[in-house]
Amino acid sequence: MFVGAHGEEHVDDGMVILQANLDDMNPEWTTYVAELLFAAGANDVYWIPIVMKRGRPGVMLNVLASREAAPRMEGIVFRETTTLGIRRIEASVHRLGRRMVAVDTQWGPVTVKVGYAGGEAVQYAPEYRECAAIAEREGMPLKAVYDEVRRAYQEKADRG
Amino acid sequence: MFVGAHGEEHVDDGMVILQANLDDMNPEWTTYVAELLFAAGANDVYWIPIVMKRGRPGVMLNVLASREAAPRMEGIVFRETTTLGIRRIEASVHRLGRRMVAVDTQWGPVTVKVGYAGGEAVQYAPEYRECAAIAEREGMPLKAVYDEVRRAYQEKADRG
Amino acid sequence: MFVGAHGEEHVDDGMVILQANLDDMNPEWTTYVAELLFAAGANDVYWIPIVMKRGRPGVMLNVLASREAAPRMEGIVFRETTTLGIRRIEASVHRLGRRMVAVDTQWGPVTVKVGYAGGEAVQYAPEYRECAAIAEREGMPLKAVYDEVRRAYQEKADRG
Amino acid sequence: MFVGAHGEEHVDDGMVILQANLDDMNPEWTTYVAELLFAAGANDVYWIPIVMKRGRPGVMLNVLASREAAPRMEGIVFRETTTLGIRRIEASVHRLGRRMVAVDTQWGPVTVKVGYAGGEAVQYAPEYRECAAIAEREGMPLKAVYDEVRRAYQEKADRG
Amino acid sequence: MFVGAHGEEHVDDGMVILQANLDDMNPEWTTYVAELLFAAGANDVYWIPIVMKRGRPGVMLNVLASREAAPRMEGIVFRETTTLGIRRIEASVHRLGRRMVAVDTQWGPVTVKVGYAGGEAVQYAPEYRECAAIAEREGMPLKAVYDEVRRAYQEKADRG
Amino acid sequence: MFVGAHGEEHVDDGMVILQANLDDMNPEWTTYVAELLFAAGANDVYWIPIVMKRGRPGVMLNVLASREAAPRMEGIVFRETTTLGIRRIEASVHRLGRRMVAVDTQWGPVTVKVGYAGGEAVQYAPEYRECAAIAEREGMPLKAVYDEVRRAYQEKADRG
Repeated sequence: MFVGAHGEEHVDDGMVILQANLDDMNPEWTTYVAELLFAAGANDVYWIPIVMKRGRPGVMLNVLASREAAPRMEGIVFRETTTLGIRRIEASVHRLGRRMVAVDTQWGPVTVKVGYAGGEAVQYAPEYRECAAIAEREGMPLKAVYDEVRRAYQEKADRG
Repeated sequence: MFVGAHGEEHVDDGMVILQANLDDMNPEWTTYVAELLFAAGANDVYWIPIVMKRGRPGVMLNVLASREAAPRMEGIVFRETTTLGIRRIEASVHRLGRRMVAVDTQWGPVTVKVGYAGGEAVQYAPEYRECAAIAEREGMPLKAVYDEVRRAYQEKADRG
Repeated sequence: MFVGAHGEEHVDDGMVILQANLDDMNPEWTTYVAELLFAAGANDVYWIPIVMKRGRPGVMLNVLASREAAPRMEGIVFRETTTLGIRRIEASVHRLGRRMVAVDTQWGPVTVKVGYAGGEAVQYAPEYRECAAIAEREGMPLKAVYDEVRRAYQEKADRG
Repeated sequence: MFVGAHGEEHVDDGMVILQANLDDMNPEWTTYVAELLFAAGANDVYWIPIVMKRGRPGVMLNVLASREAAPRMEGIVFRETTTLGIRRIEASVHRLGRRMVAVDTQWGPVTVKVGYAGGEAVQYAPEYRECAAIAEREGMPLKAVYDEVRRAYQEKADRG
Repeated sequence: MFVGAHGEEHVDDGMVILQANLDDMNPEWTTYVAELLFAAGANDVYWIPIVMKRGRPGVMLNVLASREAAPRMEGIVFRETTTLGIRRIEASVHRLGRRMVAVDTQWGPVTVKVGYAGGEAVQYAPEYRECAAIAEREGMPLKAVYDEVRRAYQEKADRG
Repeated sequence: MFVGAHGEEHVDDGMVILQANLDDMNPEWTTYVAELLFAAGANDVYWIPIVMKRGRPGVMLNVLASREAAPRMEGIVFRETTTLGIRRIEASVHRLGRRMVAVDTQWGPVTVKVGYAGGEAVQYAPEYRECAAIAEREGMPLKAVYDEVRRAYQEKADRG
């Protein structure tokens, strides 16, 4: 979520949330659709379990995208799902500034994504893929890798 | 749930919960399957939203039935859903004694289902279908019909 | 959803989504409320499981309706549920063109709802009620009826 | 929800719903965040289970607040959760008029919150905290306390 | 969960999971019931959103308890909820050894719960209540308090 | 699920369902844990959204495995998640016979998994990965690929 060249804190006003309730679609296809949407520029894709007409358990597809990208997203949703209608809700998104920082660990540098509000670092998250690769290679619990990377980040932050 | 001739508090020891995770089935069919299962003697049928393999949002079908009825239930589930396997978990069910009681209201008698533990009434619930019929006929909010029936039951219970 | 005289692909701009979080209401009443809302012109009604204040599991009622119908819908929601407030979110809905098509099967003609984007058929769905009636009458699995109807539609589409 | 000096039925037009999808945050912190948000003036805080990128089960934080309070809410969300972005959706909220009414019961007066639409009472709900305190003190089922308070309210309402 | 004198890794064989599907109960009462169950010795209480008969969104109450405590738990569930039946499933629970450890931080000692498998520490979790109290007193984000406590624990563990 | 040399319909009696409620774990790790569990021989892994102690939204990890594999699974769960306890429930699993069948399509042979009950084919499902690869290569909707493969299977089945 929220990846791109734009690293400063800002508000995107021209965003939309597209929603489609799916009650007659093979759930095997959900990850496929999500990948197509991300590849076509979706900012986020997520699913909400819902109860639909006649008490059917279904899912609601949600796509966050820019207003410009919305028609492209709708084309994919109509083409790949079974819905006959897509709701569109206007939204703005307040995004933190973010920067990728490399921290030194016993396994070499690992990337941490840092979020900035008003110039101050308020969030940081080790990159999942890099940590997972280390955990597999080293035969360590993933949570221990996270701990180590988080601690290395904190120490770096303490040193300023 | 809990229908039948057996009105005394008791524990059914020979029950099973059948479970099937469905990730490639049309959710339009869920109510149809549930009706078939109830018609064939299921004690209860309910659905749980789950996240399945590869992050697919799916649903888990649950059928509560007697051990004797289980093969019949499994036949229906295999026939009507897309699952290749059904889990079976042994369970016992502690059921309250229950009695259908008619209470007098301004709209005539309405049925209330009363539950007994150790001979004492601990639950009561107006019958949904009768209340819904009254609400429609009288043009009243359903909740007001429930209030009235509940109050009539309480007064009857107070009088002993 | 999406029923009516209007069969061409179009965008409805003046729609609203009404939402009410329900944490002190009898869930037995949900289907009753949904039927009243549909009867009064709601375009869709669906429920989302949520976690509310003080960690209470509750449900959020969602009603999709035109802006004109919104006050009528709100009246029903206040009257029939226990909520003290209803959120209203503006939305537009992109609807596919749709046409009901009869396809020939061994059981006679069955209706298929077809969705059109840019004049091209991108969706089709056999009518649930007709398929369920055939499955019951013929003693067949509902999924087999769907398969047959879908195949008949495809062959018809192939012939142009 | 819906507490305050403002007791007449009205529509608040300048409301927003803030949403953040959380997939890397300790759920132990959710109640803590909710309390901070309520203390800072949120009108409501609720959580929706969702399925996020790569099939991760996560939760979506929702905050209902006035447009004026939104920046304060966003500050808390960025500070206390792990999100890098917050969606903002405009909403209006139709609120019933509400009044706190004391009804006489065998345990003394108990507060009931009454909701008014068009001047007419359409909702009433016994105050949870008072009823829970009575149930604990008297060693009664909470549901029996509610029944009694609801009945006392109805009788008071009948008398006009 | 998992509180008590018993601090060694072990398997409890005589446990049961009690389940009740609730579709006609006020969700306001859920936290009240959970507290009563914990006070009476439940090992855990949790809720699962489900879709019940006639498509009603409901919740399933789950209580984990010893076989000895089960009748007491069932009494509370029948007394405080609206269910007419409780399912009982046999279970065993594999519990880690656990020890409460005090770690030194800039705010004084903070308790960390450590879990042991085969004598080795595999889990550790700062105590929520202590961290929340520090966060409030110091005006710090809760997540920063957790970070600090986790780091202090790790350093203590490194020193052996 | 249900992969392996064993192709005949049968009941596996010695299965267990392992469950852990997770309320203080990073959901980013869920797919990682699931992959480890599948690699170590789990028959299925799935997640259920739940509401935990103090109203925290959490998830319940479920692992279906043979009784022999259970200790290995528990080792992974303790090592990779934050839980201090794992519930174990005995289950049997009724599995259909299954066979992989190649059907001819315009894109070459595609695998369909067929399920047999009592020697009769009751289920069939095109292999997701093969269909997804065709859809990407041919620039077709995935649902159209499924339709074509299903139809090819039906025609093959009709020919006997």
